[in-house]
Amino acid sequence: MMEIILAREYGFCFGVRRAIGLAEETLRSGKKVASLGPIIHNPLEVSRLESIGLRVIDDINELKEGESILIRSHGVPLEVIQELKDRDIDIIDATCPLVARAQRMVDFLSSEGYKVIIAGEQGHPEVKGLVSYGKGNTFVVSSLEEVPDLSKEKVGIVGQTTFSIERFREIVGEVVSRSWEVRIFNTLCNASRKRQKAVEELVDKTDVIIVIGGKNSANTRRLVDIVESKGATVYHIESWDEVLAEWFVGKEKIGITAGASTPDWVIDKVLEKIKRLCFQ
Amino acid sequence: MMEIILAREYGFCFGVRRAIGLAEETLRSGKKVASLGPIIHNPLEVSRLESIGLRVIDDINELKEGESILIRSHGVPLEVIQELKDRDIDIIDATCPLVARAQRMVDFLSSEGYKVIIAGEQGHPEVKGLVSYGKGNTFVVSSLEEVPDLSKEKVGIVGQTTFSIERFREIVGEVVSRSWEVRIFNTLCNASRKRQKAVEELVDKTDVIIVIGGKNSANTRRLVDIVESKGATVYHIESWDEVLAEWFVGKEKIGITAGASTPDWVIDKVLEKIKRLCFQ
Repeated sequence: MMEIILAREYGFCFGVRRAIGLAEETLRSGKKVASLGPIIHNPLEVSRLESIGLRVIDDINELKEGESILIRSHGVPLEVIQELKDRDIDIIDATCPLVARAQRMVDFLSSEGYKVIIAGEQGHPEVKGLVSYGKGNTFVVSSLEEVPDLSKEKVGIVGQTTFSIERFREIVGEVVSRSWEVRIFNTLCNASRKRQKAVEELVDKTDVIIVIGGKNSANTRRLVDIVESKGATVYHIESWDEVLAEWFVGKEKIGITAGASTPDWVIDKVLEKIKRLCFQ
Repeated sequence: MMEIILAREYGFCFGVRRAIGLAEETLRSGKKVASLGPIIHNPLEVSRLESIGLRVIDDINELKEGESILIRSHGVPLEVIQELKDRDIDIIDATCPLVARAQRMVDFLSSEGYKVIIAGEQGHPEVKGLVSYGKGNTFVVSSLEEVPDLSKEKVGIVGQTTFSIERFREIVGEVVSRSWEVRIFNTLCNASRKRQKAVEELVDKTDVIIVIGGKNSANTRRLVDIVESKGATVYHIESWDEVLAEWFVGKEKIGITAGASTPDWVIDKVLEKIKRLCFQ
């Protein structure tokens, strides 16, 4: 008897769900809205939002008269917010509350005289935002080797919300062994980690795993890597169109998971397709 | 040609040197002084101080009329200081400034609403002192397994000054991965660690090593262990009397080090004895 088993944690994280909710609510209210950059890295969901009126722009100068601007979940640099305010533009702030907290912590630590280490990837949009709150007192560090010598300073540490907890611990340990005073705000979000743990468990319970999510989504690809590294059979799909009946021949237990930027409606369509192929 | 090589770091640490200086200065001023417990774990130095008038007591009730009390370098619980003040006893506070800083940090963190983890050995006199400043909000943790679940609390971390930096890092990492806000004061002192590194270097440069220090001194014994673990020849002595000429037969380079509680005058007498045996 065939069975479909969902991962214990999968799909939208809280911050992405909230951002999309805000976009929909604003559009429903009749406002014209443009998002600064694609709201998430899932082409199907971005298309759906465009179909109900959301415009995607790359620069605030592309804004049209009377249009509100949507700040996506990983936030933007303080200067961008400042310029939008100066221009009196209506801001729909969909910055993830966990990212906003990290921004506040960078601001607080810098104001209190700490040098602030941001454990994260240089150049990542969220990290660019965090740096902007540090008044020039920040150091972006992605590995042990990059930890600067701040032995004579009070040091604050904040993390990019999606940073690896293992590397965060390593960096903290290194800083703590060099400095007298270290103040840490663990701003890492558990969503990616929980999805990774859940897919590991799923491998043990299933014969084949389908991972749903943008082919360009890093967190989705990491789920695929985990299954592959355990030597199990895995298919990475973006849309229900890609699902083939032959994947399920001779299989009894089908595992399903999805990245943090994969919307429920896509997951539902994939499930329907599998049920049609396997149970009818 | 025979040569004596001293370790890059050896002997009294700053806090012990300061404590003994305070004892001597007080005795010179004509005051009568009793130390609460032996001022350091070196019998020769304690005898010397007794010979110039220092009395050693185990309990403050043993104090004589008009006697001042000397608080030794690792400090005492706050209640003891309070009782001495209530009794209007003159206090000579030789608490190591690094220990006093750790006490202040425990007090500060507890007052600011943090639960305070003290990385250290339960029952150690310094740790008993630190705990007393925490107003009931402390947890003594000596290993990863002992880290309590404080995931819903603001957590402060302070270390026993002589705690292992490696274990301190591990404990910090564990706490940081569980809690949102962690504030760390690295109160570890470098003295023991520097002496350990220095004796490691000494092994590579010498044929035989003499370690000077109390047979009951843990930090001294650790220096001996390090030499033994590298398979080199080592003699642990407390006094110059123990030095034997036969140790140096056929040796060219003699390494010398001493624990953090070994006074300079003992080291000097050992050096004189070795020179007399080998160079005359």
